[in-house]
Amino acid sequence: MNYAILAVLTGVAALLYSFWRAIWISKKDPGTEKMQKIGSYIAQGAMAFLMAEYKVLVIFVIAVAVLLGFSGASATDSHPLVALSFVVGALCSALAGFLGMRVATKANYRTTNAARKGLSEALAIAFSGGSVMGMGVVGLGILGLGGLFIFYENYFGFTSDKASLVLNVLSGFSLGASSIALFARVGGGIYTKAADVGADLVGKVEAGIPEDHPLNPATIADNVGDNVGDVAGMGADLFESYVGSILGTMVIGAAFAPTLQQIDGMSGLSAVILPLVLAGIGIIVSILGTFAVRIGESGNPQAALNMGNFVAGILMIVASFFAITAFLPEKWEAVSILTGENRVYTANGVFFATIFGLVAGILIGIITEYYTGSGKPPVYQIAKQSTTGAATNIIAGLSVGMQSTAIPIILISAAIMLSYYFADLYGIAIAALGMLANTGIQLAVDAYGPISDNSGGIAEMSEQPPEVRQITDKLDAVGNTTAAIGKGFAIASAALTALALFSAFMQQAKINSINVADPIVMAGLFIGGMVPFLFSALAMGAVGRAAMDMINEVRRQFHEIPELKAALEVMKKHHGETHNVKGNDLKVLEAAEGKAEYAKCVEISTKAAIREMVIPGLLAIVIPVLVGFVFGPKALGGLLAGVTVTGVLMAIFQSNAGGAWDNAKKMFEGGVEVNGKIYKKGSDAHKAAVVGDTVGDPLKDTSGPSLNILIKLMSVVSLVIAPLIK
Amino acid sequence: MNYAILAVLTGVAALLYSFWRAIWISKKDPGTEKMQKIGSYIAQGAMAFLMAEYKVLVIFVIAVAVLLGFSGASATDSHPLVALSFVVGALCSALAGFLGMRVATKANYRTTNAARKGLSEALAIAFSGGSVMGMGVVGLGILGLGGLFIFYENYFGFTSDKASLVLNVLSGFSLGASSIALFARVGGGIYTKAADVGADLVGKVEAGIPEDHPLNPATIADNVGDNVGDVAGMGADLFESYVGSILGTMVIGAAFAPTLQQIDGMSGLSAVILPLVLAGIGIIVSILGTFAVRIGESGNPQAALNMGNFVAGILMIVASFFAITAFLPEKWEAVSILTGENRVYTANGVFFATIFGLVAGILIGIITEYYTGSGKPPVYQIAKQSTTGAATNIIAGLSVGMQSTAIPIILISAAIMLSYYFADLYGIAIAALGMLANTGIQLAVDAYGPISDNSGGIAEMSEQPPEVRQITDKLDAVGNTTAAIGKGFAIASAALTALALFSAFMQQAKINSINVADPIVMAGLFIGGMVPFLFSALAMGAVGRAAMDMINEVRRQFHEIPELKAALEVMKKHHGETHNVKGNDLKVLEAAEGKAEYAKCVEISTKAAIREMVIPGLLAIVIPVLVGFVFGPKALGGLLAGVTVTGVLMAIFQSNAGGAWDNAKKMFEGGVEVNGKIYKKGSDAHKAAVVGDTVGDPLKDTSGPSLNILIKLMSVVSLVIAPLIK
Repeated sequence: MNYAILAVLTGVAALLYSFWRAIWISKKDPGTEKMQKIGSYIAQGAMAFLMAEYKVLVIFVIAVAVLLGFSGASATDSHPLVALSFVVGALCSALAGFLGMRVATKANYRTTNAARKGLSEALAIAFSGGSVMGMGVVGLGILGLGGLFIFYENYFGFTSDKASLVLNVLSGFSLGASSIALFARVGGGIYTKAADVGADLVGKVEAGIPEDHPLNPATIADNVGDNVGDVAGMGADLFESYVGSILGTMVIGAAFAPTLQQIDGMSGLSAVILPLVLAGIGIIVSILGTFAVRIGESGNPQAALNMGNFVAGILMIVASFFAITAFLPEKWEAVSILTGENRVYTANGVFFATIFGLVAGILIGIITEYYTGSGKPPVYQIAKQSTTGAATNIIAGLSVGMQSTAIPIILISAAIMLSYYFADLYGIAIAALGMLANTGIQLAVDAYGPISDNSGGIAEMSEQPPEVRQITDKLDAVGNTTAAIGKGFAIASAALTALALFSAFMQQAKINSINVADPIVMAGLFIGGMVPFLFSALAMGAVGRAAMDMINEVRRQFHEIPELKAALEVMKKHHGETHNVKGNDLKVLEAAEGKAEYAKCVEISTKAAIREMVIPGLLAIVIPVLVGFVFGPKALGGLLAGVTVTGVLMAIFQSNAGGAWDNAKKMFEGGVEVNGKIYKKGSDAHKAAVVGDTVGDPLKDTSGPSLNILIKLMSVVSLVIAPLIK
Repeated sequence: MNYAILAVLTGVAALLYSFWRAIWISKKDPGTEKMQKIGSYIAQGAMAFLMAEYKVLVIFVIAVAVLLGFSGASATDSHPLVALSFVVGALCSALAGFLGMRVATKANYRTTNAARKGLSEALAIAFSGGSVMGMGVVGLGILGLGGLFIFYENYFGFTSDKASLVLNVLSGFSLGASSIALFARVGGGIYTKAADVGADLVGKVEAGIPEDHPLNPATIADNVGDNVGDVAGMGADLFESYVGSILGTMVIGAAFAPTLQQIDGMSGLSAVILPLVLAGIGIIVSILGTFAVRIGESGNPQAALNMGNFVAGILMIVASFFAITAFLPEKWEAVSILTGENRVYTANGVFFATIFGLVAGILIGIITEYYTGSGKPPVYQIAKQSTTGAATNIIAGLSVGMQSTAIPIILISAAIMLSYYFADLYGIAIAALGMLANTGIQLAVDAYGPISDNSGGIAEMSEQPPEVRQITDKLDAVGNTTAAIGKGFAIASAALTALALFSAFMQQAKINSINVADPIVMAGLFIGGMVPFLFSALAMGAVGRAAMDMINEVRRQFHEIPELKAALEVMKKHHGETHNVKGNDLKVLEAAEGKAEYAKCVEISTKAAIREMVIPGLLAIVIPVLVGFVFGPKALGGLLAGVTVTGVLMAIFQSNAGGAWDNAKKMFEGGVEVNGKIYKKGSDAHKAAVVGDTVGDPLKDTSGPSLNILIKLMSVVSLVIAPLIK
C-alpha cells in the first residue's frame, strides 16, 4: 500500500521534471521574427488539429462511458466506476498528447535558432522537448493508474474476493488510454501522410520546388503533420502500451494474493504492486538517464542519445533485480492460472523473465535495423532492383518486409516460452513491462526526432544559411538505431502485453481453455486474423482519399492565386534554385511571399484526418463487442488470438517494408553502384525508388504502428466486457 | 466394401474418358508446318521442364519414403507401408501432371488450326484438352486412394481398432500428392513468371516488339510457362486438394465405426466409404457435364462452359442427397471427437453441411469476381488511382487485396460453424469434399484457359491472319467468372480441408485440446502464422532472381546475334508493325527468322525454376517436423492453426490484389474515364497500371496459389508424424 503511494509519487516527480524542462525551453531565444511566425503557424495548426480531434473524441468518450456505466452496473464482477476509470484514462492520454505537442511546437523553432550558434545547445533543446513528452507520458500514466488503484483499494477494500472486481474496474483506464491512442495514431497518421504526399506530389514533383519551400501551400501542414503524427500520435501510443503492460501484470499478479498473504502475513498484494514499483523505478532511472545526454560541439549526437538510453537501461536492470527480490518471496507455490495445477515460483525466475523480455526486444531492434538500415544487404537489394523499374522495386520491398517477420517472430516466441517457463503467465506479463519500464527516456529520444525534423523545415522556410541546415540535418539524421530498437520494444511488448491481457481476459471471463480445434474458436481465429488486413486496407484507403483532397487544394492554389502562379514560372526558369535570382524575377518571388494559403491546407488535412479516423477506430471496438455478445467468450478468445498473431505479423511487415523502401530511396543520394554502374539522385532508378518510398509511407506511418494499438485495444475491450459475457 | 470398389471403378471410367478424348484430339488436323513446329517447341520445352523437375523430385521422394518407412516401423500406430502410400501418391500426382500437359501441348496448336475454320471446333478441342486433365486428375486420385484403401483393408483387416492405423498409413498418399503439388506449383509458378517478365520487359518494353513475336527469344519459354504453371501446376494442385478432402473426411468418419456397426450390423464403415462414393458420383456427373459443353458458330463460349458446370453441379446436389441418405442411418448418436460428449447426427445434417460448403464456395467466387472483375468498383478505383502514378496504383491494389479478405473470411467462418452445427467435424470435412467433388469438370474448364491462351500465342507466332487471332482471343477471354468461382472453391475448401486434417491430426496425436492460452501453443501459432509470410517472401525473391537470369539472356541474344540485332532495328523503324514491311527491310526480317535461340531461354527458365523451388518447398516439410519433434504435438497444433489462418488470408489477399491489378491494366485497353478525361493504352496512367500488374504477377501466379497447398501439406505432414510425437 505504501509502495503504491511511493510509485505514484515518482509520477509526480516525472511531471515536475517535465514542467521544469518546459519552462527552461520557453526561456530560450525564440529566434528571428520569421522563425517565430512559421513556428506559430505550425503550433496553431497542430493545436487546431488536436482540438478538432478531441471534440470528436469527447462525444465518443461520453457515449462509451455511459454504456460502460450501465454495463458495469449490470454485471456482478464489475461496477459502474469502470466508466470513471475509462474517462480518467482517456483524459490522461489526451493530456499527455496535448502537453507533449505544446512543448514540441515551442522547441522546434528554438532548436533552429540555437542551431545558428552550434550543435550542443540545439541538441539540448530538441532533446528537452522530447523529454517533456516522455516524462509527461509516464508521469500521467502512473499517476492515473496508481491513483485510481489506491482509490479503489480504499473504496472496495482489497481482499482476495474483491481482487477481480477492483482490477476489472481499473481496466477501464487502459481502455480509455487505448481508444484515444488508436484514434490519435490513425488520425495523426492520416494527417501526416496526406500532407506529406500532397506537398511532395504537387510541390516537388509537379511544380519542381524544393522540399519545405514557403511557396508550397502544403508545407506548413506537412510540418504540422510531423507533430500530430510523430509527437502526439506516438505519445498516445506509448501511453497505452505503458499502462497496458502495467495493468496486465497487475491483473495476473492478483491470482497470487491468497498464497502471498500466507507468506507475508499482510495484504498479499506484492505481485500486484510490483508492476507499479518497477514503473516508478523506471521513471527515476529515466530522469537520471536524461542527464547523461550531453554533447560537445564536435560530438556525435547519436552517441549522446545512446548514452542516455544505456545508462537508464543498466540502472533499470540492477534496480529491478533488487526490487523484485525484495518484493517477492524467494520461493512460493501457487496454482498456475493456465494449467490449474500448483507450480513453484521464484523471485529470481521473475527477474529472469524481465531479462528475456529485454534481450528479445534488443535483438528484434537489431534485426529491424538490419532489414531497414541504409546500406545493409536487404535495403541494397531494393535499391538494386530499382534499376529495372518501379515494379521490381516494389516486389523487392514486399519480399524484404515479409521476410523480416521471421526472426522477430521466433524471438517473440522464444521470449514467451522462456518467460513462461521461469514465471508462468506472470513472467510473460512482466517481460513486457520490463521492456517498457524505461518508456520515459525512450520516448524522449523518439520525440526528439520530429522536433529536429521540424527545426530543419523551419530553417528552410525561414531561409537560413546552409550551415544552419547542416546542423539541423545532423540532428535529424541520428536516432535511427535508437528508433529501430524502440520499434523492436514496441512490437515485442505489444505481443507479450496482448498475451498477458489475453490471460487476464480468460481469468475474468472464467474460461480456462480456448481450444482452437473448436470450430467456434477457429471461426473467431479466422475473423480476428482478418481484422488487421481490413484495418490496414481502410487506413490505406483513408490516406489515399485524404491525400487526394490535399493534392486538389494545392493544385487549386497554384492555379488560382496569380502571385503563386507567377512565382512558379520563375522557379521553373531557375530549376528550383532561387538563391541567385535577381532583378524582376526576384520581385516576382517577393510578391508571392505569404500568398500561399497555408491555413486552408491545414484545415483540409485536419478535416480529412478526423473524418477518416472514425471507421477504422470504431472497428476495433465494435468487432470484439459483437463477437463476444453474439458468439460468446470462446469465439472472442479465438478472435483475440487471431488479431494478435496477424496484427504482430502485419505490423512488422508493414513497418519494415516501409522503412526499407525509405532508406533504399535515400541511398540514391550518395549514389548506388550496380554492376559497376553508379545510379544517382534523379536517375530512373531513383525515381523507381521514390515510388517504393511513397507506397511505404502509409504502411510505416499510418497502418503499421496503429496495428500494435489495435491488438491491445481489442484485448482491453474484451477484458472490460468479460464479466458481461462469461 | 463393394461400394469402395464401385468408386474405384468410376476412376477407371474417368481414365477411359481421358484416353478417349486424348485420342480424339490426336486425330485432329495439326495445321500448318509452322504451327506444328512451334507446337513441338512448346511441347518439348514443357516436357524438358517436367523431366528436370521429376528428376529432382525422384530423389526427394526416395529420401522421404525411406524416412517414412523407418518412422512408420517405429511407431505403434503406424506401419512402414505409409512409405508405399507416399510413393503411390507422388506417382499419381506426377502422372496426372504429365498426362494433362502432354495432351494440352497437343491440343494448343490444333485449337489454333481449328480456329481457322470456326469457333465451334476450336472450343471443342480446347475444352477436350482440359477435360483430359480434369478426368485424369480425378481418375488417378480415386483409383490411387481407393485402391490403396481396399488393399490395406484386406491387409490389416478393417476392424475398429485398426481404423486409426489404416488411415494413418493411407495418409501417406495425401502427403505424396501434396508434396509434389507444392513443388509443381512453386516451380511452375517461378518458371512461368520468369519467362513472362523476361519476355515482356526486354522484348515488349525495351525492344518494342509485340507480344508472342517470333523474334523474341523468350516467347517459347513464355508459352511453355503457361503449360507448366497453369496446366501441370494447377493439375497437381487440384489433385492434392481433391485427395486431401477425401482423406480428411475418411479419417474423421472412422470415429463413427463402432456406432454404425451396431446399427448396420456390418463393418460400420459407411461414413468412411461415403467420401469415396461421393467422389465417384462427382466423376460420373462431371463426365455427363462435359457433354453439355457445346456451342454453335455464333454462340457464347462462356455460356457453354457455364452450362457444363451447372449441369454437373445440379446433378451432384441431387445425387449426393440420395447417396448420403442411403449410406448413413437417418439418425445416430456418437461421441463428438471434439467435446468428448455424445451428440445426435442425422443423414440430413450431413447433406446440409455439404450444401453450406457449396453455397460458401459460390458466394466467395462471386465476391472474388467483384473485387477482381474488370469494370467493377474496386478495379476501377485502382485504374483511377493510376492517373496519379505507380505509387497510388500500388497502394490502391494493396488496399483492395487486403479488403477483399473480409467477406470470404466471414463466409468461411459461417460455413465452419454451420456445417459443424449440423454434423460436427464430419460436417466440416464433407463440406470441403462437396466443393471438390466436381473437380473433374471444374478442372477441365480451368485447364481450357491456358490451352486457349497458348493457341492465341501460336496464331501470333505462326503469323495467322487477324480473324484467327480474333477467334482464339474470344476463346481466351471467357472463363474468368468460372475461374473466379473455381478460386472461391479452392480457397474455401483449403480452409475446411485444413480444419478437417487438423482434427484428424489431433485424433492421431491423441490430444483433445489445443489451448491458445498455453504459451507453447501461442508460440506455435506465432511461428505458424509467420510461415506464409516467409514462404511468400522466398517465392517472390525466387521469381525476381529467375526473371533476372532471363532478362540477361534475352539481352545477350539481342546483342550478340547479328541477325536479331539487325531485325530489331527494322522493327523499331516500323514501330513494331511489320505487316507492310517490304524490300530490304523484309529481307532483314526474314534473315532473322529462326535465329532466336528459344531453347536457351527454355533451359534458363527450367534451371532457375528447379533451383528456386527447393527451399520454399522443403520449408513446408521441415518446419512441422522440427516443431513437432522439438516442442511436441501442442506446439505443432498451434503451428497448424497459425499457418491455416494467415495462409488463407495471404492467399486471398495475394490472388485478389494480383487479379485486380491485372484487370485494372486491361481496362486501359478500352480507355478509363476519370473526371471526364479518358486515359488510353500508352498513357502515363496505363504505364503506372502496368507496374501494378507486374507486381501482382508473382503474387497471384506463384506465391498466392501455392499457399493453399502449403497449408494442407503442413497439415498432412503433421498427420503423418502424429503417431511418432504423441
